[in-house]
Amino acid sequence: MADRVIPIPKEELLAKIAPEIENIEQKMREDLQNVTASSDPLLAEILNYGIFNGGKRLRPLLVVFAARLCGWTPKCKIDVYRLAIAFEYLHGATLYHDDVIDRADLRRGKTTVSKEFGSIAAILGGDFLHSRSMFLIGEQGGVEALRIFCRATAAMVDGEFLQLRNAQRYNLSEEDYFAAVKGKTALLIAATCEIGALAGGATVHQQRALADYGLSLGTAFQIIDDLLDYQGDSIKTGKAVGNDFQEGKMTLPFILAVAAADNEDRQRLLSLLEEQEYQEGAFEEVLAIIGKYGSFELCRKKAEKIVEKGVNGLKIFSGKECESILPFLNGLAVYVLARKV
Amino acid sequence: MADRVIPIPKEELLAKIAPEIENIEQKMREDLQNVTASSDPLLAEILNYGIFNGGKRLRPLLVVFAARLCGWTPKCKIDVYRLAIAFEYLHGATLYHDDVIDRADLRRGKTTVSKEFGSIAAILGGDFLHSRSMFLIGEQGGVEALRIFCRATAAMVDGEFLQLRNAQRYNLSEEDYFAAVKGKTALLIAATCEIGALAGGATVHQQRALADYGLSLGTAFQIIDDLLDYQGDSIKTGKAVGNDFQEGKMTLPFILAVAAADNEDRQRLLSLLEEQEYQEGAFEEVLAIIGKYGSFELCRKKAEKIVEKGVNGLKIFSGKECESILPFLNGLAVYVLARKV
Repeated sequence: MADRVIPIPKEELLAKIAPEIENIEQKMREDLQNVTASSDPLLAEILNYGIFNGGKRLRPLLVVFAARLCGWTPKCKIDVYRLAIAFEYLHGATLYHDDVIDRADLRRGKTTVSKEFGSIAAILGGDFLHSRSMFLIGEQGGVEALRIFCRATAAMVDGEFLQLRNAQRYNLSEEDYFAAVKGKTALLIAATCEIGALAGGATVHQQRALADYGLSLGTAFQIIDDLLDYQGDSIKTGKAVGNDFQEGKMTLPFILAVAAADNEDRQRLLSLLEEQEYQEGAFEEVLAIIGKYGSFELCRKKAEKIVEKGVNGLKIFSGKECESILPFLNGLAVYVLARKV
Repeated sequence: MADRVIPIPKEELLAKIAPEIENIEQKMREDLQNVTASSDPLLAEILNYGIFNGGKRLRPLLVVFAARLCGWTPKCKIDVYRLAIAFEYLHGATLYHDDVIDRADLRRGKTTVSKEFGSIAAILGGDFLHSRSMFLIGEQGGVEALRIFCRATAAMVDGEFLQLRNAQRYNLSEEDYFAAVKGKTALLIAATCEIGALAGGATVHQQRALADYGLSLGTAFQIIDDLLDYQGDSIKTGKAVGNDFQEGKMTLPFILAVAAADNEDRQRLLSLLEEQEYQEGAFEEVLAIIGKYGSFELCRKKAEKIVEKGVNGLKIFSGKECESILPFLNGLAVYVLARKV
C-alpha cells in the first residue's frame, strides 16, 4: 500500500461510506420511480428487483470519491450522485444480460432477474437501464464523459467476445487473461474514476492518475472474484464455488498453476478442465494441485501488487481534499483485496 | 395527402434519395470500421452482417430531411449524417434483440444475426450498437437530443412489456393497439424527425410539427407492416405471412374485423386465434372473414388518414427549403403507405 496514506480501519470505512451509499440508493429510488411513473408496472418491478439486491455500490462510490478528491462539493452544478448511479445502472444492465447469456439461476443467493421474470423481460430491462445510464452520463458529464463511458462499454462487449473465443482454448496465457479482464471489468471501473475526476474539474494528470487507480482496482477486483470462485464460501458469496472450472474457463489461479506445475500435474489439470462431464472429486483434485504450487497465494500477491501501483499513483494529490478522501480510496482498495463476498 | 404539396413520383423519389442513402451507408461503413478497428473480428463481422441487410434507411433519411427542412446545410457544425446513423444503429440493436426474443430465423429473407451467430453474440452486438447510437446522439445533438432519444427507447421497452401483457389477451381494443404501436414504433420515428429538427435549428413549432409528422408516419408504417403480415407477398417481404395470427397477436386488421363482425363470425375469429396448434386452412379462413367485413380496406384508410394529418401539419413550413424538401417528406409518406416490403 502507499506509504503516505494509511487506509482507515474496515469498520470506520464502512461507517463513513454508509451515508454515501444511502445517498446513492435514495437517488436511484427517486430516479426509478420517476422514469417508470407511467410505465408498465412490471418494468418498475423488474428494475427494483435487480437494482436493490444488496450490491456493494463500489462503482458509484468511486465516482463520488474521485469527484470529491478533485474538488467537487455539493455546491457544484454537476449532480455527482446522479452521475454516479449511471454506473450502477450500467452494472445492472450487464448483469441482466449476463444472466441470460450464462443461463444463471442465482446471484447473491437470490433468483436472477432472467430466472424470476424470464429472459425476454431481462433483456428488455437491461436495455432500459443501459439507455437510462447513458442519458445520465450525457446529462451530467457531457460528451467527454459519454466518450469515456462508451469506450468502456465497447471494451466490455469486446471482452465478452474474447471470452467466447477463449472458452474454446485450453492454453491461455497470463497476458490473455489480463487482456480479457481489462475489457470485461477493469476499464469500466477506470471509467468511474475518470468520469468522477472530470466532474470534479480534474487536471489531465489527476484524471490520468485516477483512471490508472481505477484500472488497477478493477483488475484486482476481478482477480479476487476469480479466486473466490475457487476458495469462496458459497454461503457468503451466494454463488457455488467451482463454476469457472466446471465451465472450462481458465482464470488466473489455474493459469498460474499450469505455468508452475511439472509435466504430469500440468497434463492432469488440463485434462480435468477439458472433460465436459461433471466428475466426482475433480474440483477437489484441481484445488489440491493449484494449492500444491502456491498459485492461490501468488494470485493474491499479484492482485496486491497491482493495487499498490494504482494507489501509489494517487500521491500526486495534495491538500485538504486529499487528507479526507484519499484514505477512503485507499480503504476501498484494501477492501477489494480483503473481500470474502 | 396535403393539398399544397404534391408528392414526387416514386421513381423520382428513389432517384433523389439514392445519394442520401449512399451518404448514410458510407458514414456507417466508416464509423463501424473505425470503432471496431481494435476489436475482436467477430464483432465487426456481426455488426456488418446485421447493419448492411438491405434496410430501407427510413429513420436516418428522416433525420436528414427534417434537419434540411429546418435550415441545416453541410456548412453547419453538426454532422447530420453522423446523427442520422445513430437511428439506424438503434434500429439494428432492436432487431438483434427482437430476433433473440422472438427466436426468429429469417429477416428480409436472410438468416437473422441470432440464428447465424448465436443469441449471445446477438445480445452483445445489440448492446454495442445501442451504446454507439447513444454516444453519437450525445455527441452531435447534446443533452436535449439524448433526452428525446431516451424517452423513445424507454417507450419502446415499455411497448414491448405491453405487448407481452397483451399477448395473453384476446380482447384488444383499437385503443390498446394504437398505444402499443406508439411505444413500439411511432415514438422513435417521431424522435428521428424531432432530433433532425433540433439539429437544423428549428423553432419550437417546427420541432413539434415534425415530431407529429414522424408520429403519424411511424404509426402508419406499423399498420402497413401488420397489413403485410396478412396480405404481403412473402417472397418480396422475406417473411412468412400469417405470423401474427399464428402467434395469437391481435393486430389492427383483426381487431377491426372483430369489431365489425356478427356474433358468429366474431366467435369464429377469436376461437381460431386462441387455438395454439397450427390448423390447416385456419389462416385462409381468417383472411376470408376479415376480407368479408372490408377490414383490410378500412385498416389502410385509417393509415392514410393518419399520414394525411401528419403531412398537413407540415404546412407551417415555407420558403426555399420547404419547396425542395417537403416533397420528399410527402413522398416518404406516400411510400410508407404504398410499400409492399
